[in-house]
Amino acid sequence: MKKIILASQSPRRKELLAQAGFEFDIITSDVDEKITHTKPSEIAESLSRQKAEDVFGKIVKKYGTDQVDDYLVIGADTIVAIEDRILGKPKDREDAYNMMKLLSGRTHQVYTGVTVVTSGETNIKEESNIQQLNISDDDKKCTKASIYTFHECTDVTFYDITDEEINEYLDGSLEWADKAGAYGVQATVGAKFLKELKGDYNNVVGLPVARLYQEIKSMM
Amino acid sequence: MKKIILASQSPRRKELLAQAGFEFDIITSDVDEKITHTKPSEIAESLSRQKAEDVFGKIVKKYGTDQVDDYLVIGADTIVAIEDRILGKPKDREDAYNMMKLLSGRTHQVYTGVTVVTSGETNIKEESNIQQLNISDDDKKCTKASIYTFHECTDVTFYDITDEEINEYLDGSLEWADKAGAYGVQATVGAKFLKELKGDYNNVVGLPVARLYQEIKSMM
Repeated sequence: MKKIILASQSPRRKELLAQAGFEFDIITSDVDEKITHTKPSEIAESLSRQKAEDVFGKIVKKYGTDQVDDYLVIGADTIVAIEDRILGKPKDREDAYNMMKLLSGRTHQVYTGVTVVTSGETNIKEESNIQQLNISDDDKKCTKASIYTFHECTDVTFYDITDEEINEYLDGSLEWADKAGAYGVQATVGAKFLKELKGDYNNVVGLPVARLYQEIKSMM
Repeated sequence: MKKIILASQSPRRKELLAQAGFEFDIITSDVDEKITHTKPSEIAESLSRQKAEDVFGKIVKKYGTDQVDDYLVIGADTIVAIEDRILGKPKDREDAYNMMKLLSGRTHQVYTGVTVVTSGETNIKEESNIQQLNISDDDKKCTKASIYTFHECTDVTFYDITDEEINEYLDGSLEWADKAGAYGVQATVGAKFLKELKGDYNNVVGLPVARLYQEIKSMM
Protein backbone atom coordinates (compact mmCIF):
# COMPACT_ATOMS: atom_id res chain seq x y z
CA MET A 1 0.00 0.00 0.00
CA LYS A 2 1.29 3.44 -0.89
CA LYS A 3 1.71 6.24 1.60
CA ILE A 4 -0.92 8.86 0.84
CA ILE A 5 -0.11 12.56 1.07
CA LEU A 6 -2.79 15.26 0.93
CA ALA A 7 -1.31 18.41 -0.63
CA SER A 8 -3.77 20.72 1.12
CA GLN A 9 -4.07 22.35 4.49
CA SER A 10 -7.87 22.62 4.28
CA PRO A 11 -9.38 21.07 7.41
CA ARG A 12 -12.48 20.23 5.36
CA ARG A 13 -10.52 18.19 2.81
CA LYS A 14 -8.66 16.48 5.64
CA GLU A 15 -11.93 15.49 7.29
CA LEU A 16 -13.44 14.15 4.05
CA LEU A 17 -10.40 12.04 3.21
CA ALA A 18 -10.49 10.58 6.72
CA GLN A 19 -14.23 9.84 6.35
CA ALA A 20 -13.43 7.72 3.32
CA GLY A 21 -11.16 5.63 5.52
CA PHE A 22 -7.80 6.79 4.15
CA GLU A 23 -4.77 7.15 6.35
CA PHE A 24 -2.60 10.00 5.15
CA ASP A 25 -0.19 12.79 5.98
CA ILE A 26 -0.34 16.40 4.92
CA ILE A 27 2.41 18.23 3.04
CA THR A 28 1.36 21.60 1.71
CA SER A 29 2.49 23.13 -1.52
CA ASP A 30 4.36 26.43 -1.74
CA VAL A 31 3.83 26.71 -5.46
CA ASP A 32 3.06 30.13 -6.87
CA GLU A 33 -0.18 29.08 -8.56
CA LYS A 34 -0.49 30.15 -12.18
CA ILE A 35 -3.83 30.43 -13.93
CA THR A 36 -3.21 29.49 -17.56
CA HIS A 37 -6.74 28.50 -18.58
CA THR A 38 -10.10 30.25 -18.89
CA LYS A 39 -12.64 27.42 -18.44
CA PRO A 40 -13.44 26.90 -14.73
CA SER A 41 -13.03 23.12 -14.97
CA GLU A 42 -9.59 23.56 -16.58
CA ILE A 43 -8.51 26.16 -14.03
CA ALA A 44 -9.49 23.87 -11.13
CA GLU A 45 -7.74 20.90 -12.74
CA SER A 46 -4.62 22.89 -13.53
CA LEU A 47 -4.31 24.36 -10.03
CA SER A 48 -4.83 20.95 -8.43
CA ARG A 49 -2.06 19.60 -10.65
CA GLN A 50 0.35 22.40 -9.77
CA LYS A 51 -0.15 21.68 -6.06
CA ALA A 52 0.16 17.90 -6.36
CA GLU A 53 3.22 18.09 -8.60
CA ASP A 54 4.92 20.56 -6.29
CA VAL A 55 4.42 18.31 -3.28
CA PHE A 56 5.48 15.21 -5.19
CA GLY A 57 8.64 17.10 -6.17
CA LYS A 58 9.29 17.91 -2.50
CA ILE A 59 9.01 14.23 -1.62
CA VAL A 60 11.41 13.24 -4.38
CA LYS A 61 13.87 15.84 -3.14
CA LYS A 62 13.57 14.73 0.46
CA TYR A 63 13.50 10.94 0.13
CA GLY A 64 15.11 10.42 -3.27
CA THR A 65 13.79 8.31 -6.07
CA ASP A 66 14.08 4.98 -4.29
CA GLN A 67 11.35 5.86 -1.81
CA VAL A 68 9.05 7.71 -4.15
CA ASP A 69 7.31 4.64 -5.49
CA ASP A 70 5.66 4.36 -2.10
CA TYR A 71 3.94 7.73 -2.27
CA LEU A 72 0.64 8.89 -3.72
CA VAL A 73 -0.01 12.63 -3.61
CA ILE A 74 -3.47 14.22 -3.84
CA GLY A 75 -3.91 17.86 -4.85
CA ALA A 76 -7.26 19.65 -5.09
CA ASP A 77 -8.57 23.06 -6.01
CA THR A 78 -12.14 24.35 -5.73
CA ILE A 79 -13.62 27.15 -7.82
CA VAL A 80 -17.04 28.80 -7.79
CA ALA A 81 -18.40 29.99 -11.13
CA ILE A 82 -21.57 31.78 -12.12
CA GLU A 83 -22.18 32.26 -15.83
CA ASP A 84 -18.81 33.47 -17.15
CA ARG A 85 -17.52 34.83 -13.83
CA ILE A 86 -15.20 33.02 -11.48
CA LEU A 87 -15.52 33.80 -7.79
CA GLY A 88 -12.41 33.35 -5.69
CA LYS A 89 -12.00 34.13 -2.01
CA PRO A 90 -13.47 37.58 -1.31
CA LYS A 91 -10.93 40.38 -0.91
CA ASP A 92 -12.99 42.10 1.76
CA ARG A 93 -16.51 42.42 3.19
CA GLU A 94 -17.75 44.46 0.22
CA ASP A 95 -16.47 41.84 -2.21
CA ALA A 96 -18.22 39.13 -0.18
CA TYR A 97 -21.44 41.18 -0.18
CA ASN A 98 -21.32 41.47 -3.97
CA MET A 99 -20.75 37.73 -4.32
CA MET A 100 -23.80 36.95 -2.16
CA LYS A 101 -25.90 39.39 -4.22
CA LEU A 102 -24.75 37.60 -7.36
CA LEU A 103 -25.52 34.11 -6.02
CA SER A 104 -28.95 34.99 -4.52
CA GLY A 105 -31.90 33.26 -6.20
CA ARG A 106 -29.76 31.65 -8.90
CA THR A 107 -27.88 28.49 -9.83
CA HIS A 108 -24.10 28.49 -9.86
CA GLN A 109 -21.44 25.84 -10.37
CA VAL A 110 -18.77 24.56 -8.04
CA TYR A 111 -15.79 22.82 -9.66
CA THR A 112 -13.19 20.86 -7.78
CA GLY A 113 -10.19 19.67 -9.73
CA VAL A 114 -8.24 16.76 -8.29
CA THR A 115 -4.81 15.47 -9.27
CA VAL A 116 -3.26 12.21 -8.12
CA VAL A 117 0.50 11.90 -8.65
CA THR A 118 2.18 8.60 -7.97
CA SER A 119 4.99 6.49 -9.28
CA GLY A 120 5.60 2.79 -9.56
CA GLU A 121 2.96 0.30 -10.61
CA THR A 122 -0.54 1.69 -11.16
CA ASN A 123 -3.42 1.37 -13.58
CA ILE A 124 -3.64 5.11 -14.09
CA LYS A 125 -4.86 6.02 -17.55
CA GLU A 126 -2.53 8.90 -18.32
CA GLU A 127 1.20 8.70 -17.76
CA SER A 128 3.76 11.44 -17.94
CA ASN A 129 7.43 11.82 -17.18
CA ILE A 130 8.55 13.18 -13.87
CA GLN A 131 10.53 15.82 -15.76
CA GLN A 132 7.29 17.74 -15.70
CA LEU A 133 7.76 17.99 -11.97
CA ASN A 134 10.08 20.72 -10.90
CA ILE A 135 12.74 18.67 -9.17
CA SER A 136 16.53 18.60 -9.27
CA ASP A 137 18.51 16.98 -12.12
CA ASP A 138 19.75 14.23 -9.86
CA ASP A 139 16.28 12.89 -9.30
CA LYS A 140 14.97 13.23 -12.79
CA LYS A 141 17.03 10.50 -14.31
CA CYS A 142 15.33 7.42 -12.97
CA THR A 143 11.84 8.22 -11.74
CA LYS A 144 8.64 8.31 -13.72
CA ALA A 145 5.39 9.56 -12.29
CA SER A 146 1.83 8.85 -13.25
CA ILE A 147 -0.40 11.87 -13.10
CA TYR A 148 -4.14 11.58 -13.21
CA THR A 149 -6.40 14.63 -13.12
CA PHE A 150 -10.19 14.88 -13.06
CA HIS A 151 -12.85 17.31 -11.92
CA GLU A 152 -16.40 17.17 -10.63
CA CYS A 153 -18.98 19.89 -11.17
CA THR A 154 -21.94 20.45 -8.86
CA ASP A 155 -24.88 22.76 -9.58
CA VAL A 156 -25.94 24.74 -6.52
CA THR A 157 -29.19 26.74 -6.37
CA PHE A 158 -29.81 29.37 -3.69
CA TYR A 159 -33.10 30.79 -2.45
CA ASP A 160 -33.51 34.55 -2.76
CA ILE A 161 -31.41 36.22 -0.06
CA THR A 162 -32.45 39.64 1.20
CA ASP A 163 -29.93 42.44 1.80
CA GLU A 164 -30.72 42.17 5.50
CA GLU A 165 -29.90 38.47 5.46
CA ILE A 166 -26.62 39.06 3.63
CA ASN A 167 -25.56 41.67 6.18
CA GLU A 168 -26.59 39.45 9.07
CA TYR A 169 -24.54 36.62 7.54
CA LEU A 170 -21.46 38.75 6.93
CA ASP A 171 -21.59 40.32 10.39
CA GLY A 172 -22.45 37.06 12.19
CA SER A 173 -19.07 35.41 11.72
CA LEU A 174 -16.04 35.42 9.46
CA GLU A 175 -16.92 32.11 7.82
CA TRP A 176 -17.17 33.92 4.45
CA ALA A 177 -13.60 35.25 4.61
CA ASP A 178 -11.56 32.28 3.43
CA LYS A 179 -14.03 30.57 1.09
CA ALA A 180 -14.33 30.76 -2.70
CA GLY A 181 -17.70 32.41 -3.43
CA ALA A 182 -17.80 33.73 0.15
CA TYR A 183 -19.59 30.70 1.57
CA GLY A 184 -19.05 27.24 2.99
CA VAL A 185 -21.90 24.89 2.16
CA GLN A 186 -21.62 23.09 5.49
CA ALA A 187 -22.36 26.16 7.61
CA THR A 188 -24.82 29.09 7.72
CA VAL A 189 -25.36 29.55 3.99
CA GLY A 190 -26.01 25.85 3.39
CA ALA A 191 -28.48 25.74 6.29
CA LYS A 192 -30.44 28.87 5.34
CA PHE A 193 -30.13 29.56 1.63
CA LEU A 194 -29.31 26.34 -0.24
CA LYS A 195 -32.41 25.28 -2.14
CA GLU A 196 -31.09 22.48 -4.30
CA LEU A 197 -27.91 20.79 -5.28
CA LYS A 198 -27.19 18.51 -8.23
CA GLY A 199 -24.02 16.46 -8.13
CA ASP A 200 -21.64 15.63 -5.32
CA TYR A 201 -22.17 17.57 -2.10
CA ASN A 202 -18.63 16.90 -0.87
CA ASN A 203 -17.35 18.44 -4.10
CA VAL A 204 -18.84 21.73 -2.88
CA VAL A 205 -17.21 21.23 0.51
CA GLY A 206 -13.89 20.97 -1.34
CA LEU A 207 -13.16 17.38 -2.32
CA PRO A 208 -15.18 14.91 -4.43
CA VAL A 209 -13.98 12.22 -2.11
CA ALA A 210 -16.24 9.37 -3.28
CA ARG A 211 -15.03 9.83 -6.89
CA LEU A 212 -11.46 10.04 -5.57
CA TYR A 213 -11.95 6.85 -3.57
CA GLN A 214 -13.29 5.12 -6.69
CA GLU A 215 -10.37 6.39 -8.80
CA ILE A 216 -7.73 5.32 -6.30
CA LYS A 217 -9.45 1.92 -6.00
CA SER A 218 -9.18 1.45 -9.77
CA MET A 219 -5.50 2.51 -9.74
CA MET A 220 -4.37 -0.05 -7.20
CA MET B 1 -40.29 35.95 18.77
CA LYS B 2 -41.64 32.51 19.54
CA LYS B 3 -39.79 29.93 21.57
CA ILE B 4 -38.75 27.15 19.21
CA ILE B 5 -38.90 23.51 20.28
CA LEU B 6 -37.36 20.70 18.25
CA ALA B 7 -39.36 17.51 18.76
CA SER B 8 -36.43 15.24 17.97
CA GLN B 9 -33.46 13.84 19.84
CA SER B 10 -31.39 13.40 16.67
CA PRO B 11 -28.02 15.13 17.18
CA ARG B 12 -27.88 15.68 13.41
CA ARG B 13 -31.17 17.61 13.34
CA LYS B 14 -30.07 19.59 16.36
CA GLU B 15 -26.84 20.57 14.62
CA LEU B 16 -28.59 21.61 11.40
CA LEU B 17 -31.15 23.77 13.20
CA ALA B 18 -28.32 25.48 15.07
CA GLN B 19 -26.43 26.05 11.79
CA ALA B 20 -29.43 27.97 10.49
CA GLY B 21 -29.08 30.30 13.46
CA PHE B 22 -32.11 29.18 15.44
CA GLU B 23 -32.10 29.10 19.21
CA PHE B 24 -34.25 26.27 20.47
CA ASP B 25 -34.89 23.65 23.11
CA ILE B 26 -35.54 19.96 22.65
CA ILE B 27 -38.61 18.12 23.90
CA THR B 28 -38.93 14.62 22.53
CA SER B 29 -42.17 12.90 21.66
CA ASP B 30 -43.32 9.69 23.30
CA VAL B 31 -46.00 9.09 20.71
CA ASP B 32 -46.55 5.55 19.53
CA GLU B 33 -46.05 6.33 15.85
CA LYS B 34 -48.75 4.96 13.57
CA ILE B 35 -48.19 4.41 9.87
CA THR B 36 -51.51 5.10 8.17
CA HIS B 37 -50.27 5.86 4.64
CA THR B 38 -48.48 3.96 1.91
CA LYS B 39 -46.74 6.70 -0.11
CA PRO B 40 -43.29 7.50 1.38
CA SER B 41 -43.87 11.27 1.28
CA GLU B 42 -47.17 10.85 3.14
CA ILE B 43 -45.66 8.49 5.71
CA ALA B 44 -42.83 10.94 6.44
CA GLU B 45 -45.25 13.87 6.70
CA SER B 46 -47.67 11.95 8.89
CA LEU B 47 -44.98 10.75 11.30
CA SER B 48 -43.49 14.26 11.55
CA ARG B 49 -46.96 15.55 12.39
CA GLN B 50 -47.59 12.93 15.05
CA LYS B 51 -44.34 13.89 16.78
CA ALA B 52 -44.89 17.66 16.56
CA GLU B 53 -48.50 17.45 17.74
CA ASP B 54 -47.54 15.21 20.63
CA VAL B 55 -44.90 17.66 21.83
CA PHE B 56 -47.19 20.66 21.32
CA GLY B 57 -49.77 18.82 23.43
CA LYS B 58 -47.18 18.33 26.16
CA ILE B 59 -46.43 22.05 26.19
CA VAL B 60 -50.13 22.93 26.42
CA LYS B 61 -50.49 20.53 29.34
CA LYS B 62 -47.44 21.88 31.12
CA TYR B 63 -47.81 25.62 30.58
CA GLY B 64 -51.52 25.99 29.83
CA THR B 65 -53.09 27.82 26.94
CA ASP B 66 -51.92 31.29 27.97
CA GLN B 67 -48.28 30.50 27.29
CA VAL B 68 -48.73 28.36 24.23
CA ASP B 69 -48.85 31.26 21.79
CA ASP B 70 -45.16 31.70 22.45
CA TYR B 71 -44.17 28.25 21.21
CA LEU B 72 -43.35 26.86 17.80
CA VAL B 73 -42.75 23.10 17.62
CA ILE B 74 -40.84 21.36 14.82
CA GLY B 75 -41.27 17.64 14.16
CA ALA B 76 -39.42 15.69 11.46
CA ASP B 77 -39.26 12.18 10.11
CA THR B 78 -36.87 10.77 7.50
CA ILE B 79 -37.59 7.77 5.29
CA VAL B 80 -35.48 5.98 2.69
CA ALA B 81 -37.33 4.49 -0.28
CA ILE B 82 -36.21 2.49 -3.28
CA GLU B 83 -38.80 1.72 -5.90
CA ASP B 84 -41.80 0.58 -3.86
CA ARG B 85 -39.83 -0.50 -0.80
CA ILE B 86 -39.38 1.57 2.32
CA LEU B 87 -36.18 1.06 4.28
CA GLY B 88 -36.34 1.76 8.00
CA LYS B 89 -33.57 1.28 10.52
CA PRO B 90 -31.99 -2.15 10.01
CA LYS B 91 -33.06 -4.82 12.50
CA ASP B 92 -29.62 -6.40 12.52
CA ARG B 93 -26.38 -6.75 10.54
CA GLU B 94 -27.97 -9.05 7.96
CA ASP B 95 -30.79 -6.58 7.39
CA ALA B 96 -28.21 -3.79 6.95
CA TYR B 97 -26.26 -5.96 4.50
CA ASN B 98 -29.38 -6.53 2.41
CA MET B 99 -30.14 -2.80 2.38
CA MET B 100 -26.63 -1.98 1.12
CA LYS B 101 -26.96 -4.64 -1.61
CA LEU B 102 -30.26 -3.06 -2.63
CA LEU B 103 -28.84 0.49 -2.74
CA SER B 104 -25.58 -0.40 -4.56
CA GLY B 105 -25.27 1.09 -8.05
CA ARG B 106 -28.78 2.56 -8.04
CA THR B 107 -30.75 5.72 -7.29
CA HIS B 108 -33.01 5.86 -4.26
CA GLN B 109 -35.09 8.56 -2.60
CA VAL B 110 -34.83 10.12 0.82
CA TYR B 111 -37.94 11.85 2.14
CA THR B 112 -38.04 14.04 5.19
CA GLY B 113 -41.44 15.20 6.38
CA VAL B 114 -41.52 18.29 8.57
CA THR B 115 -44.37 19.66 10.65
CA VAL B 116 -44.49 23.05 12.33
CA VAL B 117 -47.14 23.49 15.02
CA THR B 118 -47.71 26.90 16.53
CA SER B 119 -50.51 29.02 17.86
CA GLY B 120 -51.22 32.71 17.92
CA GLU B 121 -50.59 35.00 15.00
CA THR B 122 -48.93 33.44 11.96
CA ASN B 123 -49.19 33.47 8.20
CA ILE B 124 -49.30 29.69 7.99
CA LYS B 125 -51.31 28.51 5.01
CA GLU B 126 -53.23 25.69 6.66
CA GLU B 127 -55.01 26.14 9.94
CA SER B 128 -56.58 23.51 12.10
CA ASN B 129 -58.11 23.35 15.53
CA ILE B 130 -56.07 22.23 18.46
CA GLN B 131 -58.69 19.57 19.15
CA GLN B 132 -56.69 17.54 16.71
CA LEU B 133 -53.98 17.56 19.32
CA ASN B 134 -54.43 15.03 22.03
CA ILE B 135 -54.66 17.35 25.03
CA SER B 136 -56.96 17.54 28.01
CA ASP B 137 -60.50 18.98 27.83
CA ASP B 138 -59.51 21.97 29.91
CA ASP B 139 -57.09 23.22 27.34
CA LYS B 140 -59.14 22.54 24.26
CA LYS B 141 -61.67 25.24 24.81
CA CYS B 142 -59.62 28.32 24.01
CA THR B 143 -56.51 27.41 22.03
CA LYS B 144 -56.18 27.06 18.31
CA ALA B 145 -53.06 25.75 16.64
CA SER B 146 -51.76 26.24 13.16
CA ILE B 147 -50.22 23.15 11.69
CA TYR B 148 -48.09 23.27 8.59
CA THR B 149 -46.59 20.14 7.05
CA PHE B 150 -44.30 19.74 4.05
CA HIS B 151 -41.72 17.30 2.75
CA GLU B 152 -38.60 17.38 0.64
CA CYS B 153 -37.42 14.53 -1.54
CA THR B 154 -33.78 14.02 -2.53
CA ASP B 155 -32.54 11.56 -5.15
CA VAL B 156 -29.38 9.78 -4.07
CA THR B 157 -27.26 7.69 -6.45
CA PHE B 158 -24.63 5.25 -5.18
CA TYR B 159 -21.62 3.80 -6.99
CA ASP B 160 -21.48 0.02 -7.24
CA ILE B 161 -20.49 -1.36 -3.84
CA THR B 162 -18.72 -4.73 -3.69
CA ASP B 163 -19.61 -7.37 -1.10
CA GLU B 164 -16.17 -6.87 0.40
CA GLU B 165 -16.82 -3.14 0.77
CA ILE B 166 -20.21 -3.75 2.38
CA ASN B 167 -18.67 -6.12 4.93
CA GLU B 168 -15.82 -3.73 5.64
CA TYR B 169 -18.37 -0.94 6.19
CA LEU B 170 -20.61 -2.99 8.47
CA ASP B 171 -17.65 -4.31 10.50
CA GLY B 172 -15.83 -0.96 10.63
CA SER B 173 -18.25 0.78 12.97
CA LEU B 174 -21.88 0.72 14.07
CA GLU B 175 -22.81 3.86 12.18
CA TRP B 176 -25.30 1.80 10.13
CA ALA B 177 -27.23 0.63 13.19
CA ASP B 178 -29.51 3.57 13.93
CA LYS B 179 -30.01 4.99 10.43
CA ALA B 180 -32.88 4.50 7.99
CA GLY B 181 -31.44 2.67 4.97
CA ALA B 182 -28.42 1.62 7.09
CA TYR B 183 -26.34 4.69 6.25
CA GLY B 184 -25.66 8.26 7.25
CA VAL B 185 -24.74 10.44 4.29
CA GLN B 186 -22.28 12.50 6.34
CA ALA B 187 -20.01 9.55 7.20
CA THR B 188 -18.35 6.57 5.50
CA VAL B 189 -21.03 5.81 2.91
CA GLY B 190 -21.26 9.42 1.76
CA ALA B 191 -17.49 9.67 1.46
CA LYS B 192 -16.98 6.40 -0.45
CA PHE B 193 -20.13 5.43 -2.32
CA LEU B 194 -22.24 8.53 -2.99
CA LYS B 195 -21.99 9.31 -6.70
CA GLU B 196 -24.61 12.00 -7.10
CA LEU B 197 -27.36 13.73 -5.22
CA LYS B 198 -30.25 15.80 -6.54
CA GLY B 199 -32.13 17.98 -4.08
CA ASP B 200 -31.31 19.12 -0.57
CA TYR B 201 -28.30 17.41 1.03
CA ASN B 202 -29.41 18.31 4.55
CA ASN B 203 -32.71 16.58 3.81
CA VAL B 204 -30.73 13.33 3.56
CA VAL B 205 -28.96 14.15 6.83
CA GLY B 206 -32.43 14.39 8.41
CA LEU B 207 -33.80 17.93 8.16
CA PRO B 208 -34.40 20.15 5.10
CA VAL B 209 -33.33 23.06 7.22
CA ALA B 210 -33.04 25.72 4.50
CA ARG B 211 -36.64 25.06 3.38
CA LEU B 212 -37.69 25.06 7.05
CA TYR B 213 -35.90 28.40 7.60
CA GLN B 214 -37.69 29.83 4.55
CA GLU B 215 -41.07 28.52 5.76
CA ILE B 216 -40.64 29.89 9.28
CA LYS B 217 -39.52 33.23 7.82
CA SER B 218 -42.73 33.42 5.80
CA MET B 219 -44.83 32.53 8.86
CA MET B 220 -43.52 35.30 11.05
